[in-house]
Amino acid sequence: MKVKFHIEKEDTKTKARLGSLETNHGTVETPMFMPVGTRAAIKGLTPDQVKECGSGIVLANTYHLWLRPGEDIVDKCGGLHQFMNYEGPILTDSGGYQVFSLAKKKEKDITEEGVHFKSHIDGQELMLTPEKSIEIQNKLDSDIAMSFDECPPASATHEYLKNSLERTLRWAERGKKAHKNENQSLFGIVQGGPYEDLRRYSAEETVKLGFDGFAIGGVANDDESKEDMYHAIDYSIPYLPKDKVRYLMGVGEPMDILEGVERGVDIFDCVLPTRIARHGQAFTKHGKINFNNAKYKEDLGPVEEGCDCYCCKNFQRAYIRHLITVGESLGGTLLSIHNIRFLIREVEEIRKAIKEDRFIEYKEDFIKHYQQKGE
Amino acid sequence: MKVKFHIEKEDTKTKARLGSLETNHGTVETPMFMPVGTRAAIKGLTPDQVKECGSGIVLANTYHLWLRPGEDIVDKCGGLHQFMNYEGPILTDSGGYQVFSLAKKKEKDITEEGVHFKSHIDGQELMLTPEKSIEIQNKLDSDIAMSFDECPPASATHEYLKNSLERTLRWAERGKKAHKNENQSLFGIVQGGPYEDLRRYSAEETVKLGFDGFAIGGVANDDESKEDMYHAIDYSIPYLPKDKVRYLMGVGEPMDILEGVERGVDIFDCVLPTRIARHGQAFTKHGKINFNNAKYKEDLGPVEEGCDCYCCKNFQRAYIRHLITVGESLGGTLLSIHNIRFLIREVEEIRKAIKEDRFIEYKEDFIKHYQQKGE
Repeated sequence: MKVKFHIEKEDTKTKARLGSLETNHGTVETPMFMPVGTRAAIKGLTPDQVKECGSGIVLANTYHLWLRPGEDIVDKCGGLHQFMNYEGPILTDSGGYQVFSLAKKKEKDITEEGVHFKSHIDGQELMLTPEKSIEIQNKLDSDIAMSFDECPPASATHEYLKNSLERTLRWAERGKKAHKNENQSLFGIVQGGPYEDLRRYSAEETVKLGFDGFAIGGVANDDESKEDMYHAIDYSIPYLPKDKVRYLMGVGEPMDILEGVERGVDIFDCVLPTRIARHGQAFTKHGKINFNNAKYKEDLGPVEEGCDCYCCKNFQRAYIRHLITVGESLGGTLLSIHNIRFLIREVEEIRKAIKEDRFIEYKEDFIKHYQQKGE
Repeated sequence: MKVKFHIEKEDTKTKARLGSLETNHGTVETPMFMPVGTRAAIKGLTPDQVKECGSGIVLANTYHLWLRPGEDIVDKCGGLHQFMNYEGPILTDSGGYQVFSLAKKKEKDITEEGVHFKSHIDGQELMLTPEKSIEIQNKLDSDIAMSFDECPPASATHEYLKNSLERTLRWAERGKKAHKNENQSLFGIVQGGPYEDLRRYSAEETVKLGFDGFAIGGVANDDESKEDMYHAIDYSIPYLPKDKVRYLMGVGEPMDILEGVERGVDIFDCVLPTRIARHGQAFTKHGKINFNNAKYKEDLGPVEEGCDCYCCKNFQRAYIRHLITVGESLGGTLLSIHNIRFLIREVEEIRKAIKEDRFIEYKEDFIKHYQQKGE
C-alpha cells in the first residue's frame, strides 16, 4: 500500500495543518519529527528507547546503507524494518544529499546520467544514478523512498540552480519509472534555492510527475540563512497539492519546526538532537544548555523541569555533566533520549494547539521563552 | 544495616555453595556476577538495561569517582545509588587496584602512610591512604566498601609479597578504624600471590581483624596464570569463615567463574563482558565469537541461539556485525547486554545446579562445549 495522507484540521490563521499519515507500519500523526538513523541505528539508542520517546516515523540513509552493509544484505535480512528492528514506518532518503555533502568537490562529477564520486570510506569510485538510488531503496524496503536529486550549495547562482533543478526533474522522472516496490511510496523533491520563480517551477513540474508526497529540499545547507529557508518554503508550498504530505528535509531546530509548520509543512527530520547530545547539549524550553558548563556540577535538578523523558525522570543534571565530562557514552545516549523526546513533545504540543485553534499563540509563547543561541 | 550472608545449600562434591546476601538495597542470590560501572555507569547501558540482564549487585570504582566528579558531589546528589540511579546493591572497590595499575611505576611511591601517585588524567600529585579510601567510600555510600590494599604485580617475589601483605594488614586495620558509615559494610582483602603460606597468613590475620565479608585479591593481573589464580583461591578459602560472603576480585571469564564457584567463591566482578563487547566479541556456550569476522555478514540468527537477552530476542547477527563494522556504539551496547546476561545466566544456572546437587555435572558439560580461546 502507498501512504495515505488525511487532513484532520486546518489552522484558521496560518497554513498549519493537523493530519495523519497512514503507512504499512502504522499511522503517524502530523506535524511530526523524524529521528535520524543514518546507518540503520539512531545513534546510541535501541529501537525501544526511540519508541519510548514517542517516535512515529524514522529516517535511514540510502547512501550509507548502500556502502555498508549493502542493500542486498539488508534485503536478505528481511528489509530495513527487520534489520534495525523498528516496527514503525521508515523513510529512506535518496543518497543525493550525502553524495553532494560527503564527497569533496573535486571528487565528484555530475553528469546527466548521475553522479560519479569517491566513497568517503575508502575512496572507491562509485556512481549513483536515479535508477540505482531507487533500486537500492526498493531493496531496503522502507515505507517511503525519496527521488534522487541534486543538492546544490547555498552559494549556487540562479542559472546553476535552474539547470540543476531541470536535471533533477529528469532524474525524478527516471526514478519514478525505475520504482518497482509496490509497498513503497515515492516522494518528489522541490529544489530551486531561495528563488521564487525556480521554487514555483520546480514544485509545479514535480507535482505534474505525480508522487505520493512532496519534500522541500536544499534548505539544510550549513551556510543557508534562516530567511532563505523560510522563502524556500513559502515559494514552494502554494504549488503543492493540499492532500499530500509535505516534508521539509534536514530541518529540526525547535524554532524552525514552528516556522515550518506555520508555513504548511507536515514532517521534519534532523540529526541535531542526537548530534548535540553527544557534545553535551540539551534542548530546553529556554534554549540549548551545555553540560560542559561547570555550573551544572552540583545541580540536582533534571535536565529539564517537567520533562517526561527517561533521562529527566531518572537522572540529575550533576550526573549527566559527570558522564559528559568523563566521556561515558551513556551521557550522549541519555541526552539523545531527552532531545528526541523534546522535539517529539514539541510536535505533540503543536498538534494539540492546532486542534484547539491556538497554534499562533503556542508559537508566540514558545518564542518568548526560547533563547535561539543557547549555551 | 551490615550485609547478612545466609548459606542455603552446600554442594556435596565440591566447595560450591548456594547463598543469599541481604543488603540495604535488596537481597542477592549467590553465586553472583557483578557488572562493573567504573565511573558510575556500566559502559553504554542504562541502569534499566543492566537490571533487565538480571543483575543484582554492581561495582563502582572509588579511584575514578574520587578524581571525577569527586565524592562530595556524589554525596550531595544523595549518594551513589541516587547518582547513578541504580536501585540494587552497589559495592565500591578501594581504589587500590587502580592506583597500582593506572599510575606508571616511576610515578608512584608506596610508603607506610599510603601511596603517592600522579593522576592518570592530568598528572596531578595525589595521595591515597587507607583512611582516605574509606572516607571516600563512606561518602559514596555504597552498600559494601573494600579495604585499601596493595596489589603487587604477578612477578613480585615471596619476600616482597610478605612485606606487602603485612602492610596491607596494617592498612586494613587503619581503614576499619576510619570506617564511619553505619549503613555500609566493610570487606577485608586476602593477598599473598600464589604462595600457600602467605595466603594462609593473610587470610587468618584479615579474619582476625573482623570484616563483614572477605575478598581474594591479587588474582586479576594481566600476566597472572590460571594455575596461580586457582592456587590463590585454594590457599585462601580454608581460612575464611563459612558464614561470610567470599568475593573473587576482577574475575569474570565464564570458565573462571566455574572454577571459583567450585572452590567456594560467592561473588565475582569483571569489566570483560562490556570491554569485549565494544570490540565486537560475544560470549556463547561454545566460546567467544567475534563480529569483525566476515562470516557473520549475512547470518540471520541471533547472537546466541536460545539466549533470552534483549539483543538476542530482537536482532540478527548480520545487524550486529554491521553496527560493529561501521562503529555504531549501539553494537557495543547490544553485545554488552548479551555478555552481561550471559554471565548472569551462567550464575543462575550454577545456582540451579547446586540446588539440584549436580554442580560438577553442570561444570563438566559447560567445559565440554566451551572453547576457551574463541574467535
